[in-house]
Amino acid sequence: MSQTLADIGEFGMIRRIHKLIDQEGINAPGVTLGIGDDCAAFKPDEGFEVIVTCDCMVEGRHYLTDYISPFHLGRRSMVMNISDIGAMGGIPLYALVSLGLKKETPVKDMEEIYRGLMRELNPLGAAVIGGNITGADYSNFINITLIGKVEKSRMMRRSGARAGDAILVTGYPGQAAAGLKRILGNHQASDLSKDPLVTAYNMPIHRAREGRAIALSGFATAMIDISDGLVGDLGHICEESNVGAEITRNKLPLSEHMRDLINTQGWDIYEMITGESDDYELIITCAPDNKERLGSVIAEISDVPVTEIGNITAPDGIKIITPDGVRHPVRPVGWDHFK
Amino acid sequence: MSQTLADIGEFGMIRRIHKLIDQEGINAPGVTLGIGDDCAAFKPDEGFEVIVTCDCMVEGRHYLTDYISPFHLGRRSMVMNISDIGAMGGIPLYALVSLGLKKETPVKDMEEIYRGLMRELNPLGAAVIGGNITGADYSNFINITLIGKVEKSRMMRRSGARAGDAILVTGYPGQAAAGLKRILGNHQASDLSKDPLVTAYNMPIHRAREGRAIALSGFATAMIDISDGLVGDLGHICEESNVGAEITRNKLPLSEHMRDLINTQGWDIYEMITGESDDYELIITCAPDNKERLGSVIAEISDVPVTEIGNITAPDGIKIITPDGVRHPVRPVGWDHFK
Repeated sequence: MSQTLADIGEFGMIRRIHKLIDQEGINAPGVTLGIGDDCAAFKPDEGFEVIVTCDCMVEGRHYLTDYISPFHLGRRSMVMNISDIGAMGGIPLYALVSLGLKKETPVKDMEEIYRGLMRELNPLGAAVIGGNITGADYSNFINITLIGKVEKSRMMRRSGARAGDAILVTGYPGQAAAGLKRILGNHQASDLSKDPLVTAYNMPIHRAREGRAIALSGFATAMIDISDGLVGDLGHICEESNVGAEITRNKLPLSEHMRDLINTQGWDIYEMITGESDDYELIITCAPDNKERLGSVIAEISDVPVTEIGNITAPDGIKIITPDGVRHPVRPVGWDHFK
Repeated sequence: MSQTLADIGEFGMIRRIHKLIDQEGINAPGVTLGIGDDCAAFKPDEGFEVIVTCDCMVEGRHYLTDYISPFHLGRRSMVMNISDIGAMGGIPLYALVSLGLKKETPVKDMEEIYRGLMRELNPLGAAVIGGNITGADYSNFINITLIGKVEKSRMMRRSGARAGDAILVTGYPGQAAAGLKRILGNHQASDLSKDPLVTAYNMPIHRAREGRAIALSGFATAMIDISDGLVGDLGHICEESNVGAEITRNKLPLSEHMRDLINTQGWDIYEMITGESDDYELIITCAPDNKERLGSVIAEISDVPVTEIGNITAPDGIKIITPDGVRHPVRPVGWDHFK
């Protein structure tokens, strides 16, 4: 039997986590007081604003224990938060991790969650500087607060899009939704660990480096990461910028794995691309003249494809143009965990 | 039937919370981007460090729904975090609130939690600047990250206590433990809402103003808030400062309500005073010469009693001296949510 959290207790757990962070984490710049006091402390960089986001994953709602390893669960939780910092054009710095864990959780699972978190933080020079651990009776949860920095003049908002702007998107939105559908429909309990769409869902990649490069270039007018779905998050840009948007369906980027689904499963993948999907890609708007320049800026640091999918219009909702030329109004829908 | 979160959905909930914060919250200084983008942003004050803490309350573990109103639940969650900022000598500024709520939760309960949070933040000039809301299947939880500031030269650590220092404590530790015992033993389901000890448990008061005044005075050597119990948190000071401590049992402050318990219930209240109790009072250590000065500093801004309960020694654990002069070693024990 592997050792559980009940065996070592909360204080034992805290000691293990401290040790793990000491051994496998890195020292983030500016930290003046790390884990082990009432608060952590850092000295903010002059000329920067501090940016902060938080996000939570609850077992059974945002992940399924049978289909994601603790390591990848930790990774995915951190990717969500890094993505938000990246979508502002910022640099991730410090994480506070709050865990609620059932007492029968194996100690090694706990450590693997942390290793996953650090796998994402370390390459960015960022670190866990605090947090909390508590018992949970029914379902585990991970809440992360991530602190970063960005120059005020470079901060990317949702509110800067203007009619006429091009709409660009990174990567292949919808792959995570297809992966989740694969998981939920896997009644034969097949091994899906090598499935590229399941991988897209369980092991998403943030675009924080791309977001930072875009912000520094000055070519983009608005930016957001896709966590409520392509149309849902484009809707946030439209709302905050007081504009509308048109997407041309034929321009939506299709990975080969997604194409396979049309051929082999007959799935309506356009619904997946535009709807709820946890891909953490970026939507970027820019003046048409800056499209090429923006593409070059991203290509310099990243292999991720960037696709122009439509354009910003006067405020009249979001429409998808089908190949027959018809404009279909769509209602932004994101994850709604209560309905 | 009152409206539930399932009725209005996650996005409806977010709108209600934004509206509530707009109407009943305040604008904290330095915020350059509030709720409604991927991140919140603030401009840190020059000459200060940023300090940050987080704490979580889970239904059934840290609170009992039948015995605390949503408003006071919100208050108590925020008091815990404000207390940590105060124990560093800092000024609370910005909160990120992450809620996990069951779908049958009434909308008004959700709003009352926020009103409770803001009741604590508003008088301090602090505000909610972000957060997250998610569904929870089995038990509600509230996770708060609180950000504050403190001058580096004034930051109060756990690690500054020296042998010979006096140990002071604010208020009446143990009252919250007695209140919790009252609640758990209330088999007749009596109305305990007026019980002063239950009030001490459900409606704790932070000492952030006192903590700030103590830090600015320069008279204290170490400070911590009591969230793991008097001996537990004194143990943290001993560990971080590499010292020991002696407490004289007869010097422990006893409120009249606690005295009543000895007389009417025969309870061992010294166990409650030194053990696990959610009082959020402060333990302060200082050179003996500074005791009076420190008392005066606190008295200038607060009515809270400050009591000298013992002194810091060479590193030899913590001992409680009973009236017969015997020194009893005690093991620091705090809340352990796994054992």
